[in-house]
Amino acid sequence: MKEFDLIQRLTANLPNNDSVVSGAGDDCAVLDLGVPGRYVLFKTDAVVQGIHFTASASQEQIGHKALGRCLSDVAAMGGSPTAALITLALPPNFDVAFVDGVYAGISALAQRFGVAIAGGETTTNPERLLISVSVLGTVERNRCVHRAGARPGDAIFVTGQLGGSLSGKHLDFEPRLVEGQWLATHVDVHAMIDVSDGLAGDLRHILHSSGVGAELLSESIPISREAKLKARNESSAKPPLLAALTDGEDFELLFTVASRDAVAVLDAWKKRFPDLPLTCIGRITETPGLKLRDKTGLREIALHGYEHFSDPKSQ
Amino acid sequence: MKEFDLIQRLTANLPNNDSVVSGAGDDCAVLDLGVPGRYVLFKTDAVVQGIHFTASASQEQIGHKALGRCLSDVAAMGGSPTAALITLALPPNFDVAFVDGVYAGISALAQRFGVAIAGGETTTNPERLLISVSVLGTVERNRCVHRAGARPGDAIFVTGQLGGSLSGKHLDFEPRLVEGQWLATHVDVHAMIDVSDGLAGDLRHILHSSGVGAELLSESIPISREAKLKARNESSAKPPLLAALTDGEDFELLFTVASRDAVAVLDAWKKRFPDLPLTCIGRITETPGLKLRDKTGLREIALHGYEHFSDPKSQ
Repeated sequence: MKEFDLIQRLTANLPNNDSVVSGAGDDCAVLDLGVPGRYVLFKTDAVVQGIHFTASASQEQIGHKALGRCLSDVAAMGGSPTAALITLALPPNFDVAFVDGVYAGISALAQRFGVAIAGGETTTNPERLLISVSVLGTVERNRCVHRAGARPGDAIFVTGQLGGSLSGKHLDFEPRLVEGQWLATHVDVHAMIDVSDGLAGDLRHILHSSGVGAELLSESIPISREAKLKARNESSAKPPLLAALTDGEDFELLFTVASRDAVAVLDAWKKRFPDLPLTCIGRITETPGLKLRDKTGLREIALHGYEHFSDPKSQ
Repeated sequence: MKEFDLIQRLTANLPNNDSVVSGAGDDCAVLDLGVPGRYVLFKTDAVVQGIHFTASASQEQIGHKALGRCLSDVAAMGGSPTAALITLALPPNFDVAFVDGVYAGISALAQRFGVAIAGGETTTNPERLLISVSVLGTVERNRCVHRAGARPGDAIFVTGQLGGSLSGKHLDFEPRLVEGQWLATHVDVHAMIDVSDGLAGDLRHILHSSGVGAELLSESIPISREAKLKARNESSAKPPLLAALTDGEDFELLFTVASRDAVAVLDAWKKRFPDLPLTCIGRITETPGLKLRDKTGLREIALHGYEHFSDPKSQ
């Protein structure tokens, strides 16, 4: 059973109450705790040694990634993070200097975005380090951006460049908090998500939640230098377009706006964020499914198993 | 390095902001998010297979314990839990029915206390199941009970009976939410904590936070039937008093009130909670340290290493 199927199954009939604006199935849970004009965002995520980081990662990078993943989810709702709790599950006889380094990475990122580290727990996980992070944030009630708002005809945008994050970006990415808040405030964003599972996978979450389909333009997808280099230098590497579509952990923002707003969004973005590319990569369709248009025509990207999808350029 | 020392070290210089009323060092972090009249409580905790539960625990009990530990911390602040997020770290090829059972245990407890399960994550922990739970709650601003309010002369109370929780209570304890809210509302509680590390250990947290000492009355400490049975039937078991002082995971409430309020608290408690004992077990002293008074006189309970403390009855 895949993670996505498991989550679907587990979240089918969860206990609920009046505080929940939206629960499982978005980047953060959205709660109404009675803060005037604002919703509370609530998110948890974990990184595990040997899964999300290896021995080549520095202590600070591990801490940065653990907190950064949650901050990226707050960004994808247009929110501001307030406080985080850190649960460290450590093997016995852990190295105290190592743990200090992890906390230094967490603290540096928290400080940069004004997030309080309000406490946490330590426990034992005998075989490997696991860091579970919980984040609380807030968002203006009428600016909170969900996954479920994409409409047929919308233009699809993505920030930055995609693919090859394992070369380093997955450890030192910048959570797009400033950008997410700016978008939520200045643009009528219909749907937004952060790219953690890969462009194709995360776009599918938007499509699924919104009940729509999408058509991507092969030539428009912003491919990272790392994905191109990797494809050139490693014979077993994914073709660059495939890497951009399916590599995870880019932590960029993927969002849709009405097509009539697309040009204005691009213009305003360039003025506000001249150093971070924003690219229109396709459009939302009424027909379900995720399709890719290239010189040879329009092709369906298989629903499950990105491993079976091959790059037309490599054929 | 002991857990307590590690937490002290890690929480020495954490990033902070104006939202934090109190951070690390209480049962929950207390945040001011602008909810009129209320603070937000924020707590995270984890249970690990082989550490907090073994193969003898049912799936439902594991889920119950994972959520119940966090709810017990909300209870110890006088708060009401609102929503929880669940992070499951699972070995590959986990048993789906097992995970369903864990969620059934979580959901049953959540439903009983009106807590929403607002989402969560699944990830991989190759060797063993780890469940990390985050809980959000709220508490009236002027009713929030901290650890740090104990004053010399205060009477010390504990709910229920202590010791021997490994016989079963650690898996099916009742978080004292109703009791904690009643205390915060009807009684001028000076300090409160839940008994998770053991009476001596948790009382020490109150003493440390409040800058005071305590004297316990050996004869007054409510010892559970399980601790007594264990001592009678197992030659290697702790003497019952020692079990009541040092066994963990009773998840009862330990609190202090001004001595002039002590009798009124006991009377009102008996009317409101006739089935749950409340016992006055000693008093707060100006002199630091934790002492035990019995027939032979007054003895210091060693600061660290409860293992070195022996029960006078066994000597």
